[in-house]
Amino acid sequence: MNVWELSQKGYHPQKAEENGNRFFTGNGFVGVRGTLDEYKKEHFVAWNLAGIYDRFGDNAWREPVNAPNGFFAELLGAGEIVRHVQRLDLYGAMQSRETEYTHALLRIERFASQHNPHLLCQKITVTPKTTVTLRCGIDGDVWDLNGPHLFEYHCGERDGALFVECTTGEQGVPITVYETVSLPHDALETTQTGAFHVYRISQETTLERHITVKAPPVWGSYAESLEQHKSAWASLWKESAVELEGDEQAQLYLNDSLYHLHCIAPRSVQTGQSIPARGLSGQTYKGAIFWDTEVFLLPFFAYTEPALARKLVQYRIDTLPGALQKAKEYGYEGAFYAWESQEGGREGCTDFNVTDVFTGRPVRTYFRDKQIHISGDIVYALYHYARITGDTSVLSGRGAEVVREVARFYRSRAYRKIDDATLEWTDVIGPDEYHDRVDNNAFTNRLAAFSMQKARELETDSTVASESISVRQPLVRDGAIEQFQGYFQHEDASLAQVKSRLKHPKEYWGTQSGVAFPTQIIKQADVIAMLQLFADEFTDEQVLRNWEYYEPRTEHGSSLSACMYALTACRIGKLEEAYALFLKSAGADVLCDGKAWAGNVYIGGTHPAAAAGAWQIAVFGFAGLTVREGKLTAAPHLPASIHRVRFPIQFQGKKYRVSVSAAGASIIERE
Amino acid sequence: MNVWELSQKGYHPQKAEENGNRFFTGNGFVGVRGTLDEYKKEHFVAWNLAGIYDRFGDNAWREPVNAPNGFFAELLGAGEIVRHVQRLDLYGAMQSRETEYTHALLRIERFASQHNPHLLCQKITVTPKTTVTLRCGIDGDVWDLNGPHLFEYHCGERDGALFVECTTGEQGVPITVYETVSLPHDALETTQTGAFHVYRISQETTLERHITVKAPPVWGSYAESLEQHKSAWASLWKESAVELEGDEQAQLYLNDSLYHLHCIAPRSVQTGQSIPARGLSGQTYKGAIFWDTEVFLLPFFAYTEPALARKLVQYRIDTLPGALQKAKEYGYEGAFYAWESQEGGREGCTDFNVTDVFTGRPVRTYFRDKQIHISGDIVYALYHYARITGDTSVLSGRGAEVVREVARFYRSRAYRKIDDATLEWTDVIGPDEYHDRVDNNAFTNRLAAFSMQKARELETDSTVASESISVRQPLVRDGAIEQFQGYFQHEDASLAQVKSRLKHPKEYWGTQSGVAFPTQIIKQADVIAMLQLFADEFTDEQVLRNWEYYEPRTEHGSSLSACMYALTACRIGKLEEAYALFLKSAGADVLCDGKAWAGNVYIGGTHPAAAAGAWQIAVFGFAGLTVREGKLTAAPHLPASIHRVRFPIQFQGKKYRVSVSAAGASIIERE
Repeated sequence: MNVWELSQKGYHPQKAEENGNRFFTGNGFVGVRGTLDEYKKEHFVAWNLAGIYDRFGDNAWREPVNAPNGFFAELLGAGEIVRHVQRLDLYGAMQSRETEYTHALLRIERFASQHNPHLLCQKITVTPKTTVTLRCGIDGDVWDLNGPHLFEYHCGERDGALFVECTTGEQGVPITVYETVSLPHDALETTQTGAFHVYRISQETTLERHITVKAPPVWGSYAESLEQHKSAWASLWKESAVELEGDEQAQLYLNDSLYHLHCIAPRSVQTGQSIPARGLSGQTYKGAIFWDTEVFLLPFFAYTEPALARKLVQYRIDTLPGALQKAKEYGYEGAFYAWESQEGGREGCTDFNVTDVFTGRPVRTYFRDKQIHISGDIVYALYHYARITGDTSVLSGRGAEVVREVARFYRSRAYRKIDDATLEWTDVIGPDEYHDRVDNNAFTNRLAAFSMQKARELETDSTVASESISVRQPLVRDGAIEQFQGYFQHEDASLAQVKSRLKHPKEYWGTQSGVAFPTQIIKQADVIAMLQLFADEFTDEQVLRNWEYYEPRTEHGSSLSACMYALTACRIGKLEEAYALFLKSAGADVLCDGKAWAGNVYIGGTHPAAAAGAWQIAVFGFAGLTVREGKLTAAPHLPASIHRVRFPIQFQGKKYRVSVSAAGASIIERE
Repeated sequence: MNVWELSQKGYHPQKAEENGNRFFTGNGFVGVRGTLDEYKKEHFVAWNLAGIYDRFGDNAWREPVNAPNGFFAELLGAGEIVRHVQRLDLYGAMQSRETEYTHALLRIERFASQHNPHLLCQKITVTPKTTVTLRCGIDGDVWDLNGPHLFEYHCGERDGALFVECTTGEQGVPITVYETVSLPHDALETTQTGAFHVYRISQETTLERHITVKAPPVWGSYAESLEQHKSAWASLWKESAVELEGDEQAQLYLNDSLYHLHCIAPRSVQTGQSIPARGLSGQTYKGAIFWDTEVFLLPFFAYTEPALARKLVQYRIDTLPGALQKAKEYGYEGAFYAWESQEGGREGCTDFNVTDVFTGRPVRTYFRDKQIHISGDIVYALYHYARITGDTSVLSGRGAEVVREVARFYRSRAYRKIDDATLEWTDVIGPDEYHDRVDNNAFTNRLAAFSMQKARELETDSTVASESISVRQPLVRDGAIEQFQGYFQHEDASLAQVKSRLKHPKEYWGTQSGVAFPTQIIKQADVIAMLQLFADEFTDEQVLRNWEYYEPRTEHGSSLSACMYALTACRIGKLEEAYALFLKSAGADVLCDGKAWAGNVYIGGTHPAAAAGAWQIAVFGFAGLTVREGKLTAAPHLPASIHRVRFPIQFQGKKYRVSVSAAGASIIERE
């Protein structure tokens, strides 16, 4: 088994959606879905651009822009497909395909340069048995969920480069894609939205194409560009690869997870960008940044690439004005961060985020207005980042302002009873979105209290600092912490029962008329997420009781769920349960078996939080890495199939190599 | 036009549901649906009993019990129906039918004695052309929405009386129906649930039947029983009939409204009973008492039959323990009255009150837990009753306890922000049920403030009395009072637009996925109801602005709506609008065009609140009756078709006759 390669045999256009995610590649600026070169928009092709958003019309969702596809290539006159294989080299971040037609062999490899984020390269080799036609170029007829976003197309050839230029509708952002190619063409074809070269090929021919996005054309050497790309990836792996000795499947899945994280990290920008919940795999979730980044992704980068982690944190510091604005709109003080954050902290989430499959009508959801834990997640991330990296600068200046403003927000959002100083946060949504508009969600209350506590410690705000905080504590029954007020009174139906009540395969489980809503079945880790984030505050016994209560009641309908359950499972010795959840989390974008639809809304794409969660399970779970009294420690919690876990790490400015086996753990400083 | 009679020609079994309401009769203990004598349960026959409830199984709704139908009578061998007419004499409260078959003429009249509430009488006259068979008796195979409720049947003849005896399932309440009849029968037939006499008839024959429910058999004279019944009704009309000179249709509708109110008033019981929202017309709404009684029905009785009004008020005083218990269950102090109150104040409302027509699944509704204005409505009614009747005894002793406990409830249900003493009531439902779980509904906040204010005035509770109350005030925009926080931000779609979005004729407009929920379309008067209840606090200009804002946005999907809009319309001179709404309200159970279904749940039946609302429109609206500085005044607000309004009234222990025409108003004391 090659633990660094994914491959698939057979030509399956009907798998275009899932393969687009499985063979995805990217470089932090452009995300390229792993669709085949000859595919068009009906097969979910996308060159998804980081940080460029557009809204079409008044009612459609605002979403990131897909650029014209510079990898378009089709072979004509080659006959039937006899054999086909598609591969993804995870180590070199190279996607390739080999297709044998009755009259020709077609080999293509392509990559999104990790060295130059505006550059994407493709090498096409055609070995014909007869004369065939290759048509390749830039296809600007792009796939959109809520488009069109591109207008004013100009397509053609200029100064020896093929080009498609256009601009976005809302803000007039120019998007130009250039292509230079190593061989002269036989014909030029342009359409309203595309430009293509045509080659008549009767002997083995190789074309090397350099494609640039939002940058001038490049006339480079493919070999040299590839070398730079590979070298950049090798550096990334040196600082992050985790070895799972003894288990090739787990190793492959984890390699794939880290591959995806590296593909989408915003390395090329100074600031102003973070990582969307579906990476750069398309327009799902409006290309927005969710709490996924702070709670699930941040630890990976903080421990392996602190400068990148700082960018993620900085994005939230920089977008404080957007959060202040949002709070104001809702009549609150302080900082209420966007649930789905677009550029500048702009809220991308709408009031109607689900479509009823029975009526076709949009349903009022409350993710935007009630999921207030997002602000606390960000404060938590600031402290978490500082603790891991030692970079406490994020806790002063504008970072401290974030903490203070978030605390101010929770303060203004809190209610009290007349005779009781205890603070309550009512009408919220916790991580488990199937139960919306609940009171005193334990997770949310804990994050709110944490934020207010940290603001007091900063003593930057005298009002906040002078108050003692008493926060409504959850009911505990037989050791289980009640997820929100009244949760235990919900019907205690089994997951199978709840599933059996579904009347439509795509129906949404939440909202007032959804199957999960009146029951105790939850979408994802909620209390368990709190136990993991505030691990020091809870005993093993508490974790055990809650794990055993909540796990059977969890659908794991979110890719954020498995990681939290696996991490807590490691702590309480449920190693094989942890291992199964690890495979689920790490394998998310190998197996591609997640939900692609919520109601009639497309929610497919890659799962960065599950990927980063897999890293957390390997490192904090299996290897037991933790910070105790300011120092790193590790201890084995290895499932049977994994003999040893080894990985590089950075902690408070120093580099370490960690190795954990049943025999024990070592943490050794390295260069 | 006979303004005291409803009639319908033609034999229409398919109209059984609506005719059951249209030709309804009753005497406060038994309500008899106006179905034909030969109908069985599939035609919605019911002898609905006041104050006796039963629950079948663990999941079905608790509802009032339908007794065996003592009016069952069918004519066999009479051939085809040639002619048929059904009549209801409103003045004499006598239902009759005349059916000409090819071989016989059948005439039946029947009444539920207003003199003896356990007695119902029926006179059957058969005029045959050949020998026919009459089969009549007691049909115990009853119609139930959530049954069965009757068990352990015994059916037969005993001491010369036909009987069906059975007991309810939940509490084992014995239900026995006896029949005595004026002629000897030819045969006795008994089934598992019924007992019948069979007569072979070859010449004109009249049977007079005395039927008793939960009382021993009566061997009486039909003529005498009828005389006693008519005499009792004449007394009722003397004290309540309202003349609308010049408009026979309006007169007929209003007579019908008052007829229905008299049919369902609990005159025969000392205490412990009130009037259910659908009267005694069946099991809809669980036979429960809603705020309808306090806000819509009470004024009619307080002004025309104070002793009956006192019973209605007393019911709420007596059921305080149930309200204390309900508050406790929800973690509040004080008195949280049942939204759907059954015997002893027991809550009949469930957590799932609507069925989704698309999935067939019950939908979580919040009428039970969030419609907290019910407690304030009751306090309002206590004061309203005392002001009209002069009987202030309800404001001391146990009545005062009600006020204090309701105030205590609102106090414990209120929230405050940290820096603000203003009280807020969040997560409530106002009268407009299409928008559930709203914050600071203006109507609810006003009733809560009223209750707390009255408790302070009583000074029975030092905690409450010593506090000053500051309550969150609604936003006012261009004179329109915002129904609840954020309402003005809802989509301002027209009623026609909202209707056009319906995908199923029976779908419910409310809840998260309903068509009205995200819009400003409301079910019924909400702000307008507040303006009417607290009329003295608002100027004509304020009423005008709000009427013009809300009326076009109101579906009038509840029979409680038209009355409030009509009353306020009279005040601001919109007399023809008021007249149209009067006809809608007064005609509810003549036209029978209201909604009979909410989702898949049957909600048909009569509309006492609309009936009493019609009386309010005639008396407070058209005749402008009001109390000013402790005295009655009147002033004409007559629509064009009505020249004069005349009615008897009682006020603070004295009797008056009021007459209002365009020329002016007179209020003259009478005996």
